Amino acid sequence: MKNIFLKIRYKGTNYCGFQIQQNGVTIQGEVERALFNLLGQQISIIGCSRTDSGVHANECVVNFFCETKIPMKSFAMALNTKLPRDIVCFFAKDVPEDFHSRYSCKGKEYVYRIENSRFNNPINNDLTYRVFYNLDIQKMRQCAKIIVGKKDFVCFMSAGGQVNSTIREIYYLKIIKNNDIIEFRIAADGFLYNMVRIIVGTLLYVGAGKLTIDDVKKGMINGDRTVMGITVPPDGLYLNKVFYDEEGCG
Amino acid sequence: MKNIFLKIRYKGTNYCGFQIQQNGVTIQGEVERALFNLLGQQISIIGCSRTDSGVHANECVVNFFCETKIPMKSFAMALNTKLPRDIVCFFAKDVPEDFHSRYSCKGKEYVYRIENSRFNNPINNDLTYRVFYNLDIQKMRQCAKIIVGKKDFVCFMSAGGQVNSTIREIYYLKIIKNNDIIEFRIAADGFLYNMVRIIVGTLLYVGAGKLTIDDVKKGMINGDRTVMGITVPPDGLYLNKVFYDEEGCG
Repeated sequence: MKNIFLKIRYKGTNYCGFQIQQNGVTIQGEVERALFNLLGQQISIIGCSRTDSGVHANECVVNFFCETKIPMKSFAMALNTKLPRDIVCFFAKDVPEDFHSRYSCKGKEYVYRIENSRFNNPINNDLTYRVFYNLDIQKMRQCAKIIVGKKDFVCFMSAGGQVNSTIREIYYLKIIKNNDIIEFRIAADGFLYNMVRIIVGTLLYVGAGKLTIDDVKKGMINGDRTVMGITVPPDGLYLNKVFYDEEGCG
Repeated sequence: MKNIFLKIRYKGTNYCGFQIQQNGVTIQGEVERALFNLLGQQISIIGCSRTDSGVHANECVVNFFCETKIPMKSFAMALNTKLPRDIVCFFAKDVPEDFHSRYSCKGKEYVYRIENSRFNNPINNDLTYRVFYNLDIQKMRQCAKIIVGKKDFVCFMSAGGQVNSTIREIYYLKIIKNNDIIEFRIAADGFLYNMVRIIVGTLLYVGAGKLTIDDVKKGMINGDRTVMGITVPPDGLYLNKVFYDEEGCG
């Protein structure tokens, strides 16, 4: 039995999220179907993250066990012949038996893309979240500084998350402006349910003057979701990088 | 009667091109339907260009005659409430009676976007043309130089174009590389049928070593379409800018 490590990317618009479900087309379901068609074996994959419906991935890691003689250097190309056009495998390798794409993961980077313009750009439909109001980027960057670090992030979690602890460490939270596009880059050892989308929604409220940095500070101390910004839509969210310690797994 | 000038942008993927037709959803058809719903009048619009099925526009100019009391500064927003989400109006103004979006047009710029990578990036599905082989950008730039100028471009025209003359003037043809994305920017006083797509297809053949610059030179002298490269698909093509002399029409 081999333990195979894959990197995939996908456009999440037409999927009901990563995780397999009975009713609805999912990333996991499509990858498992493609593997069945390629290998003739029923495969269960383990994903590094369960992205929500409509969320995209530039890099998502999955692993699974199987018997195969397909050389690893041809594996991605072979699998792509079985995958739909909005899911692509771009890297494959053999890894040690104890590698687990979720448990072995040391952190992840997400990107959230805003289009800040008065009129919608249809080229970016499904790929960004458009905000038409003016944003004070400097104020948003100041607020980002107080969010970074090892903290209790329960105030940035949607109901429905099942976790033992709501403490996470955010390594960085950068805000990059390039013409009409504002990109949030956020890396952490782990994320709570909807955490990136609520943090971005809160920073937008700060940028629009609907919340002060003090409001956010207080909300974080009190663990109060209700004072924070909206959960922004999935369209602008991308799982961007996945970090592992193991040599050669990155 | 007012002569109203609009700038629109659209994602062309789901349309059978610009020009209205009996069977098939078109940009013109959707804009005229939206104008009817907004103004209560049957409107015929004049477009600056008839983009093909699947071609996009970052800026497309149309004009039409109507009676309306809607102030021009609110017109785009009002029209957008009636347009589908992949067609957006972002500018409107009153222009002199003799303005004609096609006949008054002094030139246009198109952009063609290539994704040059071994694996497809599904985020760019429908928005770029992917080329997996290596390209010699310097050679392509050399070849671009011999294409620019006032010349007979019949060798870069698909059958089906109905024109009096096949002489056009290409003002510039730039090739810009940014990571995996290669962008062709080409401006001319006018374009023959499929001209941009055949020029790009030919430059790709040169970049891949399938054609030499001498081959292209000879083909241009002989007016021979058959020696040139393929007509690349519409996905990567964007009408990008439209030029007018009239003050304030740009």
